[in-house]
Amino acid sequence: MTNQRLQQQIAFVVEIDRLKQVLRQTTLIDASRRENSAEHSWHLAMMALVLAEYAPAGGDVQRAIHQVLIHDLVEIDAGDTFCYDAAGHDDKAQREQRAADRIFGLLPEAIAQELRQLWDEFEAQATPTARFAASLDRIQPLLHNWQTQGGTWKQHHISRAQVMQRMTPVETGAPELWPFVLEVIDESVEAGYLTA
Amino acid sequence: MTNQRLQQQIAFVVEIDRLKQVLRQTTLIDASRRENSAEHSWHLAMMALVLAEYAPAGGDVQRAIHQVLIHDLVEIDAGDTFCYDAAGHDDKAQREQRAADRIFGLLPEAIAQELRQLWDEFEAQATPTARFAASLDRIQPLLHNWQTQGGTWKQHHISRAQVMQRMTPVETGAPELWPFVLEVIDESVEAGYLTA
Repeated sequence: MTNQRLQQQIAFVVEIDRLKQVLRQTTLIDASRRENSAEHSWHLAMMALVLAEYAPAGGDVQRAIHQVLIHDLVEIDAGDTFCYDAAGHDDKAQREQRAADRIFGLLPEAIAQELRQLWDEFEAQATPTARFAASLDRIQPLLHNWQTQGGTWKQHHISRAQVMQRMTPVETGAPELWPFVLEVIDESVEAGYLTA
Repeated sequence: MTNQRLQQQIAFVVEIDRLKQVLRQTTLIDASRRENSAEHSWHLAMMALVLAEYAPAGGDVQRAIHQVLIHDLVEIDAGDTFCYDAAGHDDKAQREQRAADRIFGLLPEAIAQELRQLWDEFEAQATPTARFAASLDRIQPLLHNWQTQGGTWKQHHISRAQVMQRMTPVETGAPELWPFVLEVIDESVEAGYLTA
């Protein structure tokens, strides 16, 4: 019979399948359906690979890949909170901490700690690595909304100021990508995807 | 205006969104719908993280993560070929080579080469890293079919011998996981998920 350690690892692998059912507000780029958090996480990891050169000084791209892979796992219990939903953010931190306790807690202790540290670092946004990871997490939905003629921005009447605030982490997390972000925002306001 | 290099990188990031629409035969673990290749790739990368200790001697887990992230990108053009579909495999290699040329070719040359080398290494299955990555790619659908009372195995009347052959890479790619794979197969035959 399989040992307890491997049983815990397999139970975790089975459990996280549920992230594929957590829907985000953002749609796919062809607007055919809403994106789920598992495929979103894959997209961010791919972005880390092909945009690695834009990581800031002191950023660890491998570690950023690990962070983006796990950053949304808490949504299995806590759900996805739309980034422009102020009310939903009131108890978001608390819900997500409880979720992290349970989900990472499925794993053997040393691995649980390793993943929890990755998640805590991402949440704290105090290292260049975490800021690079967060920058990718901001740029990806920007690309989707830009490519879908405004997508969820239009649907929720989002303004330039709201998106500018949301994109702030990119300024330090991927400084060389900041001019591109500004360009996309300008173009989106001009095209009417965002209110001025 | 954004420079050409970054334009190419962004075009690639936008293009690969299409992997989220390539459906596999396997369903999610709750059997609610078919799995797509992007979320499948995320699941494999997560497995590499939490099952890293089972990589074989000489295997590079970081590189295996990169390989599983990109291994299915060619399906954007070539589609997913069901692993037990003999006819579909006749021209699979050729279709996938053409797809790799086009998709990786969207990137600036050095990054394109880096990703193509990762994919070529995964396809050739000649290194411990590639064999570890392939083992994860075999174990994940095994878990899904086991957890869904036979899932696509039952649907296509798959036999123990077919699954045993399909799982062969695990014997050298993650030898410590081989006894677990055999256990799941035995249990699945006993439960009637697989024909004997």
